[in-house]
Amino acid sequence: MQHFTSIKDVLDLSALVKTAAAFKKDSFAMPDLGKQKTLGMLFFNSSLRTRLSTQKAAQNLGMQVIVMNVGTDGWALETEEGVIMNQGEAEHIKEAATVIGQYCDILGVRSFANLKNQKEDYEEKVLQNFIKYAGVPVVSLESATLHPLQSLTDLLTINLNKKIEKPKVVLTWAPHPKALPQAVANSFSEWMLKSEVEFVITHPKGYELSKNFTEGAIITNNQDEAFKNADFIYAKNWSAYNDYGKILSQDENWMITKEKMALTNEAFFMHCLPVRRNVIVSDDVIDNDKSLVIEQAGNREFAAQAVLKEMVIKL
Amino acid sequence: MQHFTSIKDVLDLSALVKTAAAFKKDSFAMPDLGKQKTLGMLFFNSSLRTRLSTQKAAQNLGMQVIVMNVGTDGWALETEEGVIMNQGEAEHIKEAATVIGQYCDILGVRSFANLKNQKEDYEEKVLQNFIKYAGVPVVSLESATLHPLQSLTDLLTINLNKKIEKPKVVLTWAPHPKALPQAVANSFSEWMLKSEVEFVITHPKGYELSKNFTEGAIITNNQDEAFKNADFIYAKNWSAYNDYGKILSQDENWMITKEKMALTNEAFFMHCLPVRRNVIVSDDVIDNDKSLVIEQAGNREFAAQAVLKEMVIKL
Amino acid sequence: MQHFTSIKDVLDLSALVKTAAAFKKDSFAMPDLGKQKTLGMLFFNSSLRTRLSTQKAAQNLGMQVIVMNVGTDGWALETEEGVIMNQGEAEHIKEAATVIGQYCDILGVRSFANLKNQKEDYEEKVLQNFIKYAGVPVVSLESATLHPLQSLTDLLTINLNKKIEKPKVVLTWAPHPKALPQAVANSFSEWMLKSEVEFVITHPKGYELSKNFTEGAIITNNQDEAFKNADFIYAKNWSAYNDYGKILSQDENWMITKEKMALTNEAFFMHCLPVRRNVIVSDDVIDNDKSLVIEQAGNREFAAQAVLKEMVIKL
Repeated sequence: MQHFTSIKDVLDLSALVKTAAAFKKDSFAMPDLGKQKTLGMLFFNSSLRTRLSTQKAAQNLGMQVIVMNVGTDGWALETEEGVIMNQGEAEHIKEAATVIGQYCDILGVRSFANLKNQKEDYEEKVLQNFIKYAGVPVVSLESATLHPLQSLTDLLTINLNKKIEKPKVVLTWAPHPKALPQAVANSFSEWMLKSEVEFVITHPKGYELSKNFTEGAIITNNQDEAFKNADFIYAKNWSAYNDYGKILSQDENWMITKEKMALTNEAFFMHCLPVRRNVIVSDDVIDNDKSLVIEQAGNREFAAQAVLKEMVIKL
Repeated sequence: MQHFTSIKDVLDLSALVKTAAAFKKDSFAMPDLGKQKTLGMLFFNSSLRTRLSTQKAAQNLGMQVIVMNVGTDGWALETEEGVIMNQGEAEHIKEAATVIGQYCDILGVRSFANLKNQKEDYEEKVLQNFIKYAGVPVVSLESATLHPLQSLTDLLTINLNKKIEKPKVVLTWAPHPKALPQAVANSFSEWMLKSEVEFVITHPKGYELSKNFTEGAIITNNQDEAFKNADFIYAKNWSAYNDYGKILSQDENWMITKEKMALTNEAFFMHCLPVRRNVIVSDDVIDNDKSLVIEQAGNREFAAQAVLKEMVIKL
Repeated sequence: MQHFTSIKDVLDLSALVKTAAAFKKDSFAMPDLGKQKTLGMLFFNSSLRTRLSTQKAAQNLGMQVIVMNVGTDGWALETEEGVIMNQGEAEHIKEAATVIGQYCDILGVRSFANLKNQKEDYEEKVLQNFIKYAGVPVVSLESATLHPLQSLTDLLTINLNKKIEKPKVVLTWAPHPKALPQAVANSFSEWMLKSEVEFVITHPKGYELSKNFTEGAIITNNQDEAFKNADFIYAKNWSAYNDYGKILSQDENWMITKEKMALTNEAFFMHCLPVRRNVIVSDDVIDNDKSLVIEQAGNREFAAQAVLKEMVIKL
């Protein structure tokens, strides 16, 4: 693949998941594939799992990794065209992206939604500018609207744990004190819709995601109904898409509890982390042996490694 | 050794010091020992010597190093059990530690005392949670109560410079404008008490350290008396342990001066650095050729390398 | 060369430029030259190009790189002699430099002018203290008064693009909303004066640079006159040297526009970046195919690699 910013960049999903599974068995199977290749990782936002797992994945392939925290290590970037740059931004993303691209063979970019302007966020200005100007393949380390490395991990984790051919997977909204982006939910939805699962989304009224990512999913506002016969419960908070960036509910009844999980078919519990305990999910669910959150996070390394491998062999 | 968080983790102290001394003679003696092993270094607090020397030590052994500044690169971690996480902390240390452990073969953690609550600090909540959850060996890069990599360096430096079999080593409190943890002093004390030295601690009244670390030491409030016949003067400020975290004295008479050093047996001067000149120690003492502070800091690399070597061979 | 902090450290300028040009053709020509050698990179100020390109350059040579952001990763350093350190600075640069030098084979230091005190800035206290105390070769990653890695890139870029043996090169001041150091301009001037070019400096009255760096250059306050027959236009803002650190003009007429470029001999446009579009230079000039800013930034990698190569072979 050239870039990796959404499932649309994946030519053979099944093969990609198999590659990730193979790296899980032997992470040093290709220790020289990335020799003399450099992965640049640019963080416009905080990161723990993505930062560490992607760096580890690249090093497993023998790549060099250069990490840069934009904003703290550098300075703010301008993204508007034609602007007179006499304000806070010291550099235009055009120059920054093109220049950074010259020092890397693959460029990872993390840039969250600001949740103030739907159109701006969904245009993915930062990510798209890097794709346009960097001149090298770009891997999303979570963008304003999608988090494909997370979704590949999620699919891998489901495949490694499913007990039936076509499990029922439920993405459920859960409450949170802060307004969060829709990226993980959007991304999980578009990946599930291309996978062999029965996919259901449940959320309170007003939390409808963009149809661009959910077309074809069963959507219900009845969480209890959605949980029936579920094999996997994937919890995530997001802020409203239509009433953009707003918190419309903090209803504790949407928290994932033991009682809720009892409605399912002994479902596994999943979450991308970080997770707020006893807000998103109760301790007894996340600490239960049906909780996959740790394995899911561990799989991040192998998902990233599979993606980087596909990108490196095309260089 | 499995973990390295205090002298209690050291099975053979003499052998460990010898290993460090050997690396000082040839730091690339084992360039492939750590091949395909990753040291993760997590900093909850600032670091210069520990950060650089430990990274260098790991690279000398052929290890990969991943550095993360928790808080600036990531976010605040919750350490309480069973709490409803609707405040500032975005992730529980349980998940963070377990997840990070999956990406590393050895995990280094630096987490200082907050000096507000003695019980909390001395429980070493952050370090102990990493040990409990990370699933990989943990090396302390200075914890709330101890700094064993520093103490190993100190012992190595004493051994390489001592002129008699059993030198007199004096740990002396010295004034400082800010409240500092007891970690370096606690740690130095417990290492000296297991070493072949005559060990004396001197400090103003009220600055008694926890007996857990000083049992067996000669303790006096008379600095001049303590300095008599001393072969090594180890200066360090710490805040009060009993009246926890308080500054009880800024008495300039406790600063280490030429006059004070004249009371000794031409003693070497030691300090872990960073040091405030003309507050802790006068320029003419630290710049004197009996000052070991630079060699001591240089030895950090080899102390860390010896510890990492012992940890890597057990993986 | 031992240190690399100004053109005075370069013994054979022509050979150095050739080495850089050769690395541009094959950046992995010497993949093991820096094996088991560590470049430490210390940033007292923000950096993007220098940070990434120098790290990449070192890795091309097989070096290990340790990056440290002083101030955020560590703490503030004292530079005064004999001071009683009871204020904000936790460590003296004497200790810091000497200690850090022990962990590195080559030390890179970035430390900008503060623009408050001309004498202090032009004494290069930080850089000179590192040279004095680090005990290892020091490479400037931009100091208070000079930016030699940038200047080497600039010369390389001019040489690779010039159409006549001795092109006319014009350094022109351009407006900027913030007070900037003179380092890039000083450095470019002293490098041009040792190169085979006709060198002209143009700026508004009051923006005279220190004669230490411009002796021998043609200097004019008439930008239009300067641009006539120019083959290269090198734009840069700087604050006043005599009325130190002051902004004396924000005259938009000094911005580099299409109309200004029309006065030249179809000159190439150069700038070290980051650049404020439509303040320093209009979009139609920087986006024109005569703009070299991207190539210039890309050449940073090979300039740094040539310098590091010269330093490594002398270790």
